[in-house]
Amino acid sequence: MNQYRVLIDANDQKGLVHKVSSIFYNFDLNILSNSEFVDKDSNKFFMRSVVEGAVNKKELIDSIEALLPSDSSVKVIEPKKKNIIIMATKELHALGDILIRHESGELDANILAVVSNYDALESIVTKFGIPYTTVSHVDLEREEHEQKVIDAINAYDDVDYIVLAKYMRILTPHFVETFEDKIINIHHSFLPAFIGANPYKQAHERGVKIIGATAHFVNNNLDEGPIIAQEVIHVNHNYSWKDMQKSGRDVEKVVLSRALKLALEDRIFVYNNKTVIF
Amino acid sequence: MNQYRVLIDANDQKGLVHKVSSIFYNFDLNILSNSEFVDKDSNKFFMRSVVEGAVNKKELIDSIEALLPSDSSVKVIEPKKKNIIIMATKELHALGDILIRHESGELDANILAVVSNYDALESIVTKFGIPYTTVSHVDLEREEHEQKVIDAINAYDDVDYIVLAKYMRILTPHFVETFEDKIINIHHSFLPAFIGANPYKQAHERGVKIIGATAHFVNNNLDEGPIIAQEVIHVNHNYSWKDMQKSGRDVEKVVLSRALKLALEDRIFVYNNKTVIF
Amino acid sequence: MNQYRVLIDANDQKGLVHKVSSIFYNFDLNILSNSEFVDKDSNKFFMRSVVEGAVNKKELIDSIEALLPSDSSVKVIEPKKKNIIIMATKELHALGDILIRHESGELDANILAVVSNYDALESIVTKFGIPYTTVSHVDLEREEHEQKVIDAINAYDDVDYIVLAKYMRILTPHFVETFEDKIINIHHSFLPAFIGANPYKQAHERGVKIIGATAHFVNNNLDEGPIIAQEVIHVNHNYSWKDMQKSGRDVEKVVLSRALKLALEDRIFVYNNKTVIF
Amino acid sequence: MNQYRVLIDANDQKGLVHKVSSIFYNFDLNILSNSEFVDKDSNKFFMRSVVEGAVNKKELIDSIEALLPSDSSVKVIEPKKKNIIIMATKELHALGDILIRHESGELDANILAVVSNYDALESIVTKFGIPYTTVSHVDLEREEHEQKVIDAINAYDDVDYIVLAKYMRILTPHFVETFEDKIINIHHSFLPAFIGANPYKQAHERGVKIIGATAHFVNNNLDEGPIIAQEVIHVNHNYSWKDMQKSGRDVEKVVLSRALKLALEDRIFVYNNKTVIF
Repeated sequence: MNQYRVLIDANDQKGLVHKVSSIFYNFDLNILSNSEFVDKDSNKFFMRSVVEGAVNKKELIDSIEALLPSDSSVKVIEPKKKNIIIMATKELHALGDILIRHESGELDANILAVVSNYDALESIVTKFGIPYTTVSHVDLEREEHEQKVIDAINAYDDVDYIVLAKYMRILTPHFVETFEDKIINIHHSFLPAFIGANPYKQAHERGVKIIGATAHFVNNNLDEGPIIAQEVIHVNHNYSWKDMQKSGRDVEKVVLSRALKLALEDRIFVYNNKTVIF
Repeated sequence: MNQYRVLIDANDQKGLVHKVSSIFYNFDLNILSNSEFVDKDSNKFFMRSVVEGAVNKKELIDSIEALLPSDSSVKVIEPKKKNIIIMATKELHALGDILIRHESGELDANILAVVSNYDALESIVTKFGIPYTTVSHVDLEREEHEQKVIDAINAYDDVDYIVLAKYMRILTPHFVETFEDKIINIHHSFLPAFIGANPYKQAHERGVKIIGATAHFVNNNLDEGPIIAQEVIHVNHNYSWKDMQKSGRDVEKVVLSRALKLALEDRIFVYNNKTVIF
Repeated sequence: MNQYRVLIDANDQKGLVHKVSSIFYNFDLNILSNSEFVDKDSNKFFMRSVVEGAVNKKELIDSIEALLPSDSSVKVIEPKKKNIIIMATKELHALGDILIRHESGELDANILAVVSNYDALESIVTKFGIPYTTVSHVDLEREEHEQKVIDAINAYDDVDYIVLAKYMRILTPHFVETFEDKIINIHHSFLPAFIGANPYKQAHERGVKIIGATAHFVNNNLDEGPIIAQEVIHVNHNYSWKDMQKSGRDVEKVVLSRALKLALEDRIFVYNNKTVIF
Repeated sequence: MNQYRVLIDANDQKGLVHKVSSIFYNFDLNILSNSEFVDKDSNKFFMRSVVEGAVNKKELIDSIEALLPSDSSVKVIEPKKKNIIIMATKELHALGDILIRHESGELDANILAVVSNYDALESIVTKFGIPYTTVSHVDLEREEHEQKVIDAINAYDDVDYIVLAKYMRILTPHFVETFEDKIINIHHSFLPAFIGANPYKQAHERGVKIIGATAHFVNNNLDEGPIIAQEVIHVNHNYSWKDMQKSGRDVEKVVLSRALKLALEDRIFVYNNKTVIF
């Protein structure tokens, strides 16, 4: 008996749940969990089912597709460790949290490599037995540097996700398009507040009473990709912006790891620059 | 076109979603939302669907029941205002929150009456045009007093829920059985911590850093009924137990109103002294 | 024995706590609580002490001022109910929360009146025995309407705070200056995100996973005054913007009441468009 | 110029702040921050000041003590890295979080060693360059095993804190007394709910909607020592107890690290089995 995650994204119409569940029934699949959502604004139907049985994946996909509107998307995924590459700069907290989860067997992923523009974290990363590639940006044009980063990533096959664990450089459209829908970033503010550089300084300046962090897919508008997860903590006048930064790190790492877990479990649909998360 | 809330509670078996959604399809019902849960420990299947169409309710129920295991429960509910009676003692905050929601049209309920063992809140309640019955417990045996309360409630027909909005007297098994599965209470602690009298004093004594409130259905074990909703706030050494009580009131009223809303929307299943909430 | 709240705002220098506490000692005042904060960026010292004893307020102020840098501010306040006027439009939740707190004796304030541009809330407000003034904006220029509102407020003496409990009209600089430092607003977003109109629609559009509310003093930049309190709740893709609005109301009312309480207890210092809250 | 943390714990009397701040003034010390609290129930005064200057510590302590009631406690601490020993069993998350903080320079402590009853974590700990001692409990009486643990700890000098990062064995009174006031534990529930074994199973059984974790000093009543920090997360019926355990780990590690930070910064006073935290 295998498990399959079935992900459907279609224009809504009456009877979709019926049609899909009929197919599960005909394929003798047992539904372990099932989530649906219809976005009425866009008339979009989303469904994620975890089913158990033994099927030919291609046949299952074909059977479901045959019953759905023509522009639907159907994925059938067998749970297995996904391949991720982590990008970082100098801060350890978010990367470290992922490393520890990986080490304790909690992370459903293979970390293929860590790629950074500094060698600051090389020593700790390699202790975990994970390859570390430093691609210094010093004396390089942005495009030139990024091409080297792309090459470093492309040295690995089958990369499912690229996790920006406080990678502190802005990515060009070329980079984003190269790894479309695969890049997860942690931004150290409660988006859309404090887009851009040093959000903690901005937050301190504004005198907010809550700070936060946002994990999102990266698209070509800085910090404006689809939001996956957000979390906040309370602060007060005693916090300097550096205190906010220190406290904020605990939120950043938790939010990034939570978003990564959702991605690894195939729980995220993206549409209209938003996410549906089951 | 009407809306119907379909609530199913059955022993789990393969194909339940398929079977039920087939019936919806055959009855030409459009699924607006759908939630399922299988409790593996008890092999129980729960499903709540909101569907749209025009059916004979009895026929729909019969059709679903015919396809389910024999000891299943099927309810088809047309959304309408439910009838509630609120019980209180002297504190206004939780009752007041419900009154304001009712006044602003936000509460999907008719408040038939407020019943209290004191007349302290009569003046404010009657201003809202809601009947107020004082049933003093002075000089009465517990059973005698309760019988008068039961009579006061039974003066109203079709009571869906009895909401204990800080009703500060312990109820006997007789009362609980009389209104089985209908009584919602707010307990001013994060259950199961601090069962019983003056939980804020207990919390202060213990030196906790978080206090909370719990809304639950009432059964015959004090503060041990199925939990519907819980919420907490942070406190510190500066809080006397009276400060905790004051701050706690904001949590109590929010949690009670949230639980009431879930009940009014038929979102709660109870089993094994726990709740499934869709 | 009386209580006094002593509020000091001065340029920082060595020995300020020593100097002030010496004076308390010399005046035979017992310190019940004491909070200080030094903002290093601006070299500003803030102190709030609650002391107990029997003094001539003028003498106490003079003695403290004599020891402080010349541009310091010293206030000595005897706790008593402050006078507030509440402004609202059509929504009851935030106003209602304050009315219930007032009714239950929890609010340390006299509500002099409610002023609104609609009569929608008149019936409920007057039931609480509170005067209600409708100042319709229909067919009036903004300035003309506002002058009538100002007149309605000025019909009352000694107004300490004007509480905008979802007053949905933009105020002119003239209004803000007329009641400088006295206007507390609740904005239905987690500022600085979603400034301006319909923040819930903006939040829904952006696909955020958390929504919030912000209580702040009003200055002449829309939604950019000093923040007093903020709170958030988690949302998900199931929330339409109207669902966000409904859930958001619970946050709005809690945050506004919390901010009002801080103001009534003289716990807020404002400087640099920020607040220090003891 | 040095910094000093001055911690005072005395029976309350009028003028304590005045007296202590006078001494700071006389010693030419600048107050960087200052917190006081009076527990009225026990008439206890607590004060923590961070001051800057250059003094003879002994003289400063003597001067303060001379002015305070005779049974007062005065500590003057120069900030420096404290020495900690971490005890663990097989779970990595809480220990790993501390290791990463240590590695990134964020933790104001030297980790002298990790002591465990299993060797499961040895490989990862030693990669961080930290000594690891396995003291197996197999075939040993509890007392015998504990004496070996005590010996392993006593192999190190000047141990400031012993951090139980999910050390899953109950400690005897002898152990607790040996390291009195030095042992910080993380309990995986929101105490006082679910004391003892497998709190997640207990929480699941009870059907709570929130789970939590509690960091506390260890005394001789299991899970009943003074609480330092608590945090919670929301759960629902979808969570099996193992899901609660997984999600709970994120809370556990955050709470333990937060409590450890408070201890390392000398922010915690303990009295009456409670904590005052500045």
